[in-house]
Amino acid sequence: MAGSVMGEVFKISTWGESHGYGIGVVVDGCPAGIPLTEEDIQPFLDRRSPGQTRYSTPRKEADQVKILSGVFEGKTTGTPVSMVVENTSQKSKDYSDIAGYYRPGHADYTFDAKYGFRDYRGGGRSSGRETTGRVAAGAIAAKILAELGIRVNAYTKQIGPYICREGHMTWDDVEKSPLRMPDLEQSEAAEGYLQQKMKEMDSVGGIIECIVSGMPAGVGEPVFGKLDAALAGSIFSIGAVKGVEIGAGFAVAEKTGSANNDEFYMDAEGNVKKATNFAGGILGGISDGDDIIIRAAFKPTPSIFQPQKTVNRQGEDTTVQIRGRHDPVIMPRAVVVVEAMTSLTLVDRLFVGMTSRMDRIRDFYGNIE
Amino acid sequence: MAGSVMGEVFKISTWGESHGYGIGVVVDGCPAGIPLTEEDIQPFLDRRSPGQTRYSTPRKEADQVKILSGVFEGKTTGTPVSMVVENTSQKSKDYSDIAGYYRPGHADYTFDAKYGFRDYRGGGRSSGRETTGRVAAGAIAAKILAELGIRVNAYTKQIGPYICREGHMTWDDVEKSPLRMPDLEQSEAAEGYLQQKMKEMDSVGGIIECIVSGMPAGVGEPVFGKLDAALAGSIFSIGAVKGVEIGAGFAVAEKTGSANNDEFYMDAEGNVKKATNFAGGILGGISDGDDIIIRAAFKPTPSIFQPQKTVNRQGEDTTVQIRGRHDPVIMPRAVVVVEAMTSLTLVDRLFVGMTSRMDRIRDFYGNIE
Amino acid sequence: MAGSVMGEVFKISTWGESHGYGIGVVVDGCPAGIPLTEEDIQPFLDRRSPGQTRYSTPRKEADQVKILSGVFEGKTTGTPVSMVVENTSQKSKDYSDIAGYYRPGHADYTFDAKYGFRDYRGGGRSSGRETTGRVAAGAIAAKILAELGIRVNAYTKQIGPYICREGHMTWDDVEKSPLRMPDLEQSEAAEGYLQQKMKEMDSVGGIIECIVSGMPAGVGEPVFGKLDAALAGSIFSIGAVKGVEIGAGFAVAEKTGSANNDEFYMDAEGNVKKATNFAGGILGGISDGDDIIIRAAFKPTPSIFQPQKTVNRQGEDTTVQIRGRHDPVIMPRAVVVVEAMTSLTLVDRLFVGMTSRMDRIRDFYGNIE
Amino acid sequence: MAGSVMGEVFKISTWGESHGYGIGVVVDGCPAGIPLTEEDIQPFLDRRSPGQTRYSTPRKEADQVKILSGVFEGKTTGTPVSMVVENTSQKSKDYSDIAGYYRPGHADYTFDAKYGFRDYRGGGRSSGRETTGRVAAGAIAAKILAELGIRVNAYTKQIGPYICREGHMTWDDVEKSPLRMPDLEQSEAAEGYLQQKMKEMDSVGGIIECIVSGMPAGVGEPVFGKLDAALAGSIFSIGAVKGVEIGAGFAVAEKTGSANNDEFYMDAEGNVKKATNFAGGILGGISDGDDIIIRAAFKPTPSIFQPQKTVNRQGEDTTVQIRGRHDPVIMPRAVVVVEAMTSLTLVDRLFVGMTSRMDRIRDFYGNIE
Repeated sequence: MAGSVMGEVFKISTWGESHGYGIGVVVDGCPAGIPLTEEDIQPFLDRRSPGQTRYSTPRKEADQVKILSGVFEGKTTGTPVSMVVENTSQKSKDYSDIAGYYRPGHADYTFDAKYGFRDYRGGGRSSGRETTGRVAAGAIAAKILAELGIRVNAYTKQIGPYICREGHMTWDDVEKSPLRMPDLEQSEAAEGYLQQKMKEMDSVGGIIECIVSGMPAGVGEPVFGKLDAALAGSIFSIGAVKGVEIGAGFAVAEKTGSANNDEFYMDAEGNVKKATNFAGGILGGISDGDDIIIRAAFKPTPSIFQPQKTVNRQGEDTTVQIRGRHDPVIMPRAVVVVEAMTSLTLVDRLFVGMTSRMDRIRDFYGNIE
Repeated sequence: MAGSVMGEVFKISTWGESHGYGIGVVVDGCPAGIPLTEEDIQPFLDRRSPGQTRYSTPRKEADQVKILSGVFEGKTTGTPVSMVVENTSQKSKDYSDIAGYYRPGHADYTFDAKYGFRDYRGGGRSSGRETTGRVAAGAIAAKILAELGIRVNAYTKQIGPYICREGHMTWDDVEKSPLRMPDLEQSEAAEGYLQQKMKEMDSVGGIIECIVSGMPAGVGEPVFGKLDAALAGSIFSIGAVKGVEIGAGFAVAEKTGSANNDEFYMDAEGNVKKATNFAGGILGGISDGDDIIIRAAFKPTPSIFQPQKTVNRQGEDTTVQIRGRHDPVIMPRAVVVVEAMTSLTLVDRLFVGMTSRMDRIRDFYGNIE
Repeated sequence: MAGSVMGEVFKISTWGESHGYGIGVVVDGCPAGIPLTEEDIQPFLDRRSPGQTRYSTPRKEADQVKILSGVFEGKTTGTPVSMVVENTSQKSKDYSDIAGYYRPGHADYTFDAKYGFRDYRGGGRSSGRETTGRVAAGAIAAKILAELGIRVNAYTKQIGPYICREGHMTWDDVEKSPLRMPDLEQSEAAEGYLQQKMKEMDSVGGIIECIVSGMPAGVGEPVFGKLDAALAGSIFSIGAVKGVEIGAGFAVAEKTGSANNDEFYMDAEGNVKKATNFAGGILGGISDGDDIIIRAAFKPTPSIFQPQKTVNRQGEDTTVQIRGRHDPVIMPRAVVVVEAMTSLTLVDRLFVGMTSRMDRIRDFYGNIE
Repeated sequence: MAGSVMGEVFKISTWGESHGYGIGVVVDGCPAGIPLTEEDIQPFLDRRSPGQTRYSTPRKEADQVKILSGVFEGKTTGTPVSMVVENTSQKSKDYSDIAGYYRPGHADYTFDAKYGFRDYRGGGRSSGRETTGRVAAGAIAAKILAELGIRVNAYTKQIGPYICREGHMTWDDVEKSPLRMPDLEQSEAAEGYLQQKMKEMDSVGGIIECIVSGMPAGVGEPVFGKLDAALAGSIFSIGAVKGVEIGAGFAVAEKTGSANNDEFYMDAEGNVKKATNFAGGILGGISDGDDIIIRAAFKPTPSIFQPQKTVNRQGEDTTVQIRGRHDPVIMPRAVVVVEAMTSLTLVDRLFVGMTSRMDRIRDFYGNIE
């Protein structure tokens, strides 16, 4: 596997570079009979697009998605859904300087080490623009989840020292914040912090939290196919992520068992519930029916405008000063990418999980004709 | 995929429950010509075994590994290596009480939700004993890595509030601490903390750090096959893990780009080096030649002896009091499991990475006969 | 993938050599709730065992299967089912002569070319004994198929020039023939032919036909996941197979479209039927509800007792004369292997096929809790 | 897996329908540094294109390939190569009649059974036009093979009763025959036969043979990953194939071991050779260094212009008469498809095979940096 294919049964294959023809994705294993048009996909891409606020690059790329296959008379046919977003605004600028040295915090050096050379225009395949394909596929996954009553929502939980507070935020407020921080007070404070760092030609990091609600219990496979392992792996594949945690996460290090165990109880409808959710909705790698809670740490944008020491391809020490348009903060546009990776992973695990019990398989095939 | 197979090219398939015949693993894709005997595997299993210290259960299981296939005249043949560790000390005790209710923090409820029933003896497949198969396979992976000059070492970095301090530890001290905390002062303090919690019939959490040295640059695939994504996914598949981070990890949330970017420089031998290693040895999902640094957060053992509220299979609220033998802390025995998952993942990625350049493939096949 | 793992969702991993500890298989992805004991597996292994007739080696190996995991209180738990058959009758004979040269028609040379050396005792991993693991796993697959009303049966259709005739055979007669040729007249003639060839220290080839009945329409994936492609690939993985055909098979080369197309009609119960079955139950790679018909050509046993020219490991021309016990005909014992590979493939494709329609997925998850 | 992704390490993902936007393929795992332009791909597509002779449909589609990603400055970068061929000549004709019934010998009924409905325009995903993506990817595979000294060539061996004779054909003559039958006498006879069948509004079947030369010994994995199993599975995934055989193929049924075993000898250069090649270049699933010989049986085109009995979607018996443009023979255009599937499979197996020996892996990584 060379790394651009993901999934066991619901499988996506992405392609494209930041400055080539465009970015695309092929979704193989998409069930037949889902109503699907480009209007279902576009809003997700729009949330990822640059140029939405002063904190993202003003590139104003259209990022218009086209569905090229797998849909007939408005519904998916069960065959691969191919989608493409053409690159429209990349400038034919001179990248020869970038070609020559290795930007700190970027994949320039490692791509050269791996492949012997690289497509240096705007980062090529290691550009954040690569996530466009993930988001397009994620929109289909979100539609499938919605049919099963499952919702996936993410937001910027933290930027620098500013953290959204429980009880001070609602999902409705996410889009009211240019940083997608629904605690609007903290969002404003974070904006001040960010503007200061921008003046200093610097960038900032943060945390995105993703909540899955409506998840049935029993999804995820023991041992290597654990639901949390699959989610961690797929979210860690987003370029700038340096950490992933579920439920109580790293805080468990300082907790005791009595404080961390979630007690079970029966609710009024006779369902098994947990009094707390430190587990983050997953026990033993299998969903427990509670909300799934995931957090991912994003590093500050490595493209900063300060002079930085580095080396060039000739093996000489040098100093670089990056120019151009770069977001000083990754999270606001990455929120939808986290949702996409979560949705894609959940659909794949839900599909694999359909074969866990012989009685259900017998019912399934017994009900056919 | 039902979850007990891992790897693309170097593939392992594990099986077994805590109270069945035993635990086993089949390694498919193990290259021919590696000298291998049971003595190569046993030390890894011994580090995982219970009964080593007062902080692990006194079960004294032998955990003797047997190699059943794939080795001939002392060397691997290239065909699957099957290994088994028989369960020798499980008691034929009465588990009927455990069968009836769901232990908080355990997978009892989710296994029932998924499969309709479960092997309730000692946790069955969700027992920590399942990791025995991973460790046996990890020992082979470690041998392969050693042949390539790569070393994988882990230790307990944190227990409760006690954290190993840089400059206060050496690898040699890991085994001197019953907690595998090489900062022996912190280890002693952590022991006091742990003993207090044991008196309170409670358990503690912590963090394991794993360092990979000698890693060549250029390993890992872009997009979904990123080296850090693969490592995060595989380490998150260890039962008690609730978070994984690489390099600076979650600390990046409060860092700026100028503080987080690692500058490149040329060393005296003409190699590209990084002045710092906040990246944790991976840039753009590809190894940069520096040490790989991974940390995993382990929750406190969910088996505690205090009474806990829960529900039973009949859907009634009840109170449980767990009995038997359970480690009050997971990390000391999990250190070798983290090493195993890291080693297995690295070998698979190193093998996949052999096909990244046409010139090297041409040389490879050109050199054959 | 190093080749001993098969399946996308219903996955088996086999291991073992003819003269090592034994042969085993791990079945990952076996649904929970299937009643399973060793008595379900053993009859399949007995059909594969040597020593059943004068046309198979008299080794009288017990081939007793043991289930080591994945079953609790008589039912599968959903976790991996590990099974092993110990090698009991291998002699500690001197194989040093075999080690030195390459037997014609065997994998001795190619194993050496691939791995640099080989386990030369009795063929090692390339021995027909390797199929024991397939048959054990196939028995579980057959149980799953039986729960869905699907039956898989194979027989020896041809040995040398002797071919079973339509209308002259019943399934009940398969076991009445020592060659598993249910046309008992042809079986007798084939016995005479075989005995003649045995006297000449020679061996014979033939064809096995496998029929799947009760298969629902709609199973198999377009393009690379076609049901016939999956069946062909898995049956071709049996050691001695040199050809596979479905339905009319190679005869289509001399047919016309008007003679080869199967006309559709409605039967009395209102089901779509085909007037003929030249398609062999598969159209466009998807089952059409009719019987699936597969044939595989088996080469004559390469181990013959005549002197043969070959080369040794030192690169010198030489002559070999194979000794020991070798079946002069492969088909009678391979019948159950063909059934096993067919069953394993069908289960995997049936499981993957559960995700082809959104309405069915919605029903499936809607019916849970 | 929903079936449009193939390969373990060299992985392709195809998409597209006969009457949608176009047909495409994404190649993931293509090594970096291969010179690649659209001119490398186009000749392969041209050989598959309709309108080449009077025996193929006169659609005159351009089938112009565009490379959309993965190539920079004329060389592959190691990232996914996406290619597309737009559909240019599909007519906006009325397909409502086709939509209503099931054409005999086609996948109309099985697609409906599987997915509940289908894209009925020109066969949709089950159209032979789907193979365009395979051929484009196969062209890249052929380039990789060429760099390793391996050549893959196929031709029409048989049409109806007319069979190319050994000694009467050369590779140079393949393109001189409108049927790609290099025995030009037989080709002429086959043309007569074909014209007769066309007059009768009928179609004809045949056999394609593919020869791989320059293959190194030692490629292919034991058990399920056998080289012949992989080739059989991938070639059987071509729509009209009903049988695949390697080397002596089905003829082994009537052979004896003494006649079928290939004797080994040392050639003048000190290489191990086989006196004959009944094995077809593969022993024990591993290449033996000799030519690989594969044959595939193709059914006659199911689209014939005679009236045929069938049923409609309403479940009524009816009669259909297919109209439009349909090749009366599949083989001439399928020759390059067989080559493509062979090449794709070989590259994947060659890549996987790089990890079979520890000494070679050590050399590989030892030689880096």
